Amino acid sequence: MSNPAFRLIEELTLPQVRERVRPSSVLVLPIGSVEQHGPHLPLTTDRLIASEAARAVARRCGEALDLWFLPTVAVSKANEHAWAPGTLWLRAETLLSVVNDVAASAATTGARRLVFLNSHGGNTALLVVACREVRLAHGLQTFLLHPFLPPDHGGRSTSAPAGELGMGIHGGHDETSIMLHLRPDLVDMGLATRRVPDRLAANRHVRFGGSVPFGWTSDDFGPDGHIGDPVGATAREGRELFQGAVEMLCEQLAEIATFEFGVDPEGPSR
Amino acid sequence: MSNPAFRLIEELTLPQVRERVRPSSVLVLPIGSVEQHGPHLPLTTDRLIASEAARAVARRCGEALDLWFLPTVAVSKANEHAWAPGTLWLRAETLLSVVNDVAASAATTGARRLVFLNSHGGNTALLVVACREVRLAHGLQTFLLHPFLPPDHGGRSTSAPAGELGMGIHGGHDETSIMLHLRPDLVDMGLATRRVPDRLAANRHVRFGGSVPFGWTSDDFGPDGHIGDPVGATAREGRELFQGAVEMLCEQLAEIATFEFGVDPEGPSR
Amino acid sequence: MSNPAFRLIEELTLPQVRERVRPSSVLVLPIGSVEQHGPHLPLTTDRLIASEAARAVARRCGEALDLWFLPTVAVSKANEHAWAPGTLWLRAETLLSVVNDVAASAATTGARRLVFLNSHGGNTALLVVACREVRLAHGLQTFLLHPFLPPDHGGRSTSAPAGELGMGIHGGHDETSIMLHLRPDLVDMGLATRRVPDRLAANRHVRFGGSVPFGWTSDDFGPDGHIGDPVGATAREGRELFQGAVEMLCEQLAEIATFEFGVDPEGPSR
Amino acid sequence: MSNPAFRLIEELTLPQVRERVRPSSVLVLPIGSVEQHGPHLPLTTDRLIASEAARAVARRCGEALDLWFLPTVAVSKANEHAWAPGTLWLRAETLLSVVNDVAASAATTGARRLVFLNSHGGNTALLVVACREVRLAHGLQTFLLHPFLPPDHGGRSTSAPAGELGMGIHGGHDETSIMLHLRPDLVDMGLATRRVPDRLAANRHVRFGGSVPFGWTSDDFGPDGHIGDPVGATAREGRELFQGAVEMLCEQLAEIATFEFGVDPEGPSR
Amino acid sequence: MSNPAFRLIEELTLPQVRERVRPSSVLVLPIGSVEQHGPHLPLTTDRLIASEAARAVARRCGEALDLWFLPTVAVSKANEHAWAPGTLWLRAETLLSVVNDVAASAATTGARRLVFLNSHGGNTALLVVACREVRLAHGLQTFLLHPFLPPDHGGRSTSAPAGELGMGIHGGHDETSIMLHLRPDLVDMGLATRRVPDRLAANRHVRFGGSVPFGWTSDDFGPDGHIGDPVGATAREGRELFQGAVEMLCEQLAEIATFEFGVDPEGPSR
Amino acid sequence: MSNPAFRLIEELTLPQVRERVRPSSVLVLPIGSVEQHGPHLPLTTDRLIASEAARAVARRCGEALDLWFLPTVAVSKANEHAWAPGTLWLRAETLLSVVNDVAASAATTGARRLVFLNSHGGNTALLVVACREVRLAHGLQTFLLHPFLPPDHGGRSTSAPAGELGMGIHGGHDETSIMLHLRPDLVDMGLATRRVPDRLAANRHVRFGGSVPFGWTSDDFGPDGHIGDPVGATAREGRELFQGAVEMLCEQLAEIATFEFGVDPEGPSR
Repeated sequence: MSNPAFRLIEELTLPQVRERVRPSSVLVLPIGSVEQHGPHLPLTTDRLIASEAARAVARRCGEALDLWFLPTVAVSKANEHAWAPGTLWLRAETLLSVVNDVAASAATTGARRLVFLNSHGGNTALLVVACREVRLAHGLQTFLLHPFLPPDHGGRSTSAPAGELGMGIHGGHDETSIMLHLRPDLVDMGLATRRVPDRLAANRHVRFGGSVPFGWTSDDFGPDGHIGDPVGATAREGRELFQGAVEMLCEQLAEIATFEFGVDPEGPSR
Repeated sequence: MSNPAFRLIEELTLPQVRERVRPSSVLVLPIGSVEQHGPHLPLTTDRLIASEAARAVARRCGEALDLWFLPTVAVSKANEHAWAPGTLWLRAETLLSVVNDVAASAATTGARRLVFLNSHGGNTALLVVACREVRLAHGLQTFLLHPFLPPDHGGRSTSAPAGELGMGIHGGHDETSIMLHLRPDLVDMGLATRRVPDRLAANRHVRFGGSVPFGWTSDDFGPDGHIGDPVGATAREGRELFQGAVEMLCEQLAEIATFEFGVDPEGPSR
Repeated sequence: MSNPAFRLIEELTLPQVRERVRPSSVLVLPIGSVEQHGPHLPLTTDRLIASEAARAVARRCGEALDLWFLPTVAVSKANEHAWAPGTLWLRAETLLSVVNDVAASAATTGARRLVFLNSHGGNTALLVVACREVRLAHGLQTFLLHPFLPPDHGGRSTSAPAGELGMGIHGGHDETSIMLHLRPDLVDMGLATRRVPDRLAANRHVRFGGSVPFGWTSDDFGPDGHIGDPVGATAREGRELFQGAVEMLCEQLAEIATFEFGVDPEGPSR
Repeated sequence: MSNPAFRLIEELTLPQVRERVRPSSVLVLPIGSVEQHGPHLPLTTDRLIASEAARAVARRCGEALDLWFLPTVAVSKANEHAWAPGTLWLRAETLLSVVNDVAASAATTGARRLVFLNSHGGNTALLVVACREVRLAHGLQTFLLHPFLPPDHGGRSTSAPAGELGMGIHGGHDETSIMLHLRPDLVDMGLATRRVPDRLAANRHVRFGGSVPFGWTSDDFGPDGHIGDPVGATAREGRELFQGAVEMLCEQLAEIATFEFGVDPEGPSR
Repeated sequence: MSNPAFRLIEELTLPQVRERVRPSSVLVLPIGSVEQHGPHLPLTTDRLIASEAARAVARRCGEALDLWFLPTVAVSKANEHAWAPGTLWLRAETLLSVVNDVAASAATTGARRLVFLNSHGGNTALLVVACREVRLAHGLQTFLLHPFLPPDHGGRSTSAPAGELGMGIHGGHDETSIMLHLRPDLVDMGLATRRVPDRLAANRHVRFGGSVPFGWTSDDFGPDGHIGDPVGATAREGRELFQGAVEMLCEQLAEIATFEFGVDPEGPSR
Repeated sequence: MSNPAFRLIEELTLPQVRERVRPSSVLVLPIGSVEQHGPHLPLTTDRLIASEAARAVARRCGEALDLWFLPTVAVSKANEHAWAPGTLWLRAETLLSVVNDVAASAATTGARRLVFLNSHGGNTALLVVACREVRLAHGLQTFLLHPFLPPDHGGRSTSAPAGELGMGIHGGHDETSIMLHLRPDLVDMGLATRRVPDRLAANRHVRFGGSVPFGWTSDDFGPDGHIGDPVGATAREGRELFQGAVEMLCEQLAEIATFEFGVDPEGPSR
């Protein structure tokens, strides 16, 4: 009989689920996306990062934190790239239904905590909504993690080049570096070009990472599809970024694994 | 005939809409909420702040920026307070439909820009989703503004007391101060108590303003309903906070009023 | 602390809701609309009438009948005017969801009776549907009131001029008179013209107030948007109409406040 | 080959539909209901009346007015009787979808007019909504007819006994008489009893036919299920009522068959 | 009082439903369709077959098997013929809602078994889905019967001519024969022509009755609308086919009437 | 640059999609399920078979037939196993939305053919529905393939033992053999037991593979969750079954790749 190496719940049998998925267990649902990433990166970029981050986290802290991984959601809300053939997307309502149904399933196991491990920025806001909806509908504690938070969702890169102006949100320096680390065979650096929306970067508020969220699609910034400057990306930086992300995810999951709302012993603070 | 004082679109007639709402106009939809705010603040807190912020912005920069205000959405997604009688809430799907339908209406006017001016943190993520959906479905440029961003959505208060531990997200020091400024007759400071989730504040990641969004309802932190320390709130601080917010909103709206995605004249950057 | 002047539930705190909203209380949800009303009346006409009627009713009988008012729904089902820029509308499904969600919220208070106070004819049939759906889904007793019932919903005007032929259903004599009373600054009588569908009025059955309801949009009758003859409207008639409506609403609410289905003491009649 | 006797569209072949259903044709969708009608009447009462009225109308004026009948909708919105086994009901959303889909189908024929011929009061308000929705979505002219309008929808009976107090809305004198005319074998007059809600009848506003629509289910008035006084019903009165209804329907359909919104030749009235 | 001849539940009164619809009863919902059937058959073909099969089954074994028939669903999922005027269709979601709502109603009676008696191949897959959904949602045991299974759903005709190549799925030899038996007045054999998709028949897998289901509409095979060879159809064959079908339905219903999942007395097999 | 070994569309870049996904290409969407399979097989059984079949097909005939594979849908409609913790399921509406959205995405590529490669019997009927819906909504030609068709969907096993009585539909001899071939480390033959519903097998019509589809859940047949007799399963048989399935899939895909509805050159047959 197998000792499931990567803590995949799907590799368990029914009696094993009953025995091994307990109140102390943390269920993790990786969520990626298949969508255009410019001429130099494959559609799979976000899907791959979600799956690989999940795998690395499972190896590093899966046993210690009693994590169990659900199958990666490969197709999600990528309609900002709907203009590009090959992009696969679910409407907002569909993704919300998928996440809700999976959560309803998860709530029948012994686990009480469900984590969305999301690698696609286009899902982030909807998953914040889902965290509350799932908690109200199914009673699970819910959490949202990201291997890498792009600048338009509050992420701050320390490795991105200055010339990216903090606008490397899609197929830019960091993401390209990570892909050079994970699957260099799928990257064509010969087609990597700088595509930074200088005009947007000149704004104070309405910009990626600015104080004003705004509606956009990736072709609002040009026909190539990526936003950032992948020219100087390297596998070495990719490896460091990826390892750092996995470490951080394990640190966050450790906090999640023991998280309780519970009012403090001496009652609410005064 | 009236000269609409506050730039309310509803005070126009049909011929006036045709003449005055133009491509340069910016439509603003204020969105508040009616929900429990602990024993010291009225249900109307968020609704009132949305309406009053809209009114003050209209006075300060409505004419200059060609703003037109839609009627305030008074009831929105407040299901984190659904446990408390008096809270009025729409389900996520309902609010998304309301916003979508209003946007479809708005798209038949001459204006090309629509701003959500939201005062309720429970709506924020859903409205980020709506920004993209509306843009794709109806072609409008969309933006999301907040008079005050609570700590769990990235806001950083400079006036909140240290003892609030950055957890003053609902009925805390700042919000109470603002209500003391706007409607002191509706505030009962005699019932103001410190309700800070010290245990949560001790977390590094899973906390308001931390790196991990999580699903919660306001009664997860105790039976009173507010989260923060309103004890030292003052109308003076409230006035300063409010005036600062209105200034910032006008600054943001100025950027919105001339915002264009357009690729830079010399083509995409290289 | 405030003594809520107009019986607005939103001006209460949570403890006040618990104490003051009781089984004897009647919740009132005013529902207006923002929609074109021809060249002489503002979009706000229905929204304003709903709000002002609610306010006047609250003053006149709110205390005596233990009424509590929910915030006015400003945007509703106005798709018969969807052709006109500035009209804001919700689809039928959306309005049904809004009303249902608000009713679900209301059902968590102590009150057992919910009244829709609707000023827009385009909502009437849908709200009749909602009365039953809400009663079945949430157990509340439900009622539908109108400040003024237009001729196409069974209303019979005693003040409208004969030349209106009973067709003054939108921006006609009575509605214009009421607006001259409530907000003369928003009325442009210089643009008031007679727009009576004489051909329709010649019908016996398929006409406003006839025995055959039919599907129509306001541009079916011409490009101006109003249907009726506002030329002779006066503020004096408007005041009388409005005061009469408020009196009637209080009379209806008095009956509602003590309404019980209960089978008669001596059992069902025989 | 058949000469379709009753103008049933379903008895045509495809080439016949193409040839015979023209812009001048009027499509009629009969809508009934299968629901409890007290101990003396069968569930089929409304379904039967819809079908029989349609058949009689087809015979009387079908040819002259170029009417084509769609198959009777047998199950509709009867949830006011959902407590009673044997009642079959569709939710409001479902019936709206059914009517919309059938209308979408109808819009592909040559006809431009669609009539709902409805015998069940519980559908009336929803079908008024549908008249507008169908017109906006599919461009058809839409109309709503009733063989008999119960008192709670504005009907005024001249044959009902005084002791029914205008409350004979379900299984009362008139409906029972009609069933004695149409299908006496399905009526059990030995179980006919007076069930008039005297208390409700004493109300001025909140009563069937009063000025205030309200949410009710048929068991709100007692366990028997009917509301009215069927004791003195006779087949003779039923025949007269039915024949009168058919005459009236043909009169209404004659008006519908030539109905046009068209602005009067000399332009809108002034 | 009537002795309901055809076991129609709608001919019962409420007290009769309570007495006569028992746990041993089997509810049968006939489902037909109104849709183009080529130039020689009427739109009603499937609707008529569903109703007539139900009637014949009721006569033959209704009493013995305690069957109760719900009203025939006349309009269903016929969008493969949506291109043809006169076809009436419900969307998949609508039909699923109709079936679900009727099942919810049926579940309030004493019966525990619900049978869909479906004559339209376009519904088959959706009704297989409904069997499971209804069982999970309402607890009823559910079954799907067909009077005649067309070749694309596994049916094997013994009477169809060889030249039909097993492709007689819509308006072909067998269906035309049955219509010649049931309603010869509605059949125009003068317009009967062979329309067999020879190219499709040459396929091994992607063909009606092959191993690969595929998406098609009836105009994919030519403009006439039927698929098969009705030229040699006869009423005699139709009568035999129909009688054979009724016999088979009664045999299937006999098995259904005593069907239990129940684990075998001596426990699960080993 | 990579030469995508397994014809995964996600491994392409945007320019590659534009160049390589052509009208001659066939898109394949593998659909599996994660659900209980009794005590001896892992939850992943169906998911794994879908993925592995896709991979093997890609290797064998992907290049020749110009196939491009979309990411496997891992979670689908498995609510017949919803009682068992670990089963993950989507509601029927959700899966239909997922498939529809993915098809809408696929329709923006150059390909005109979309194949569902489904390994889970619980999806089959819904995917037959989807074939038609997708074709009507998005214009794609659609096809449904199965690596192995269980007996309840018309499959006929030649390798299953006689004692399985044709009831080996879930975790039985064949499926267990295949898993012993694909992932023996995940199979626990020590827990393999015969669980054949003898009583059901005794039926003529209401049985797996009988003429009457019926609603069931897997716990209707006992608490263990599998249905069949896996005791004698062997990896050797599994390999043969799997290889045979891959051969058959390539044969079916070859027919699909050149499939055209097109009317025969000499016009419709006569």
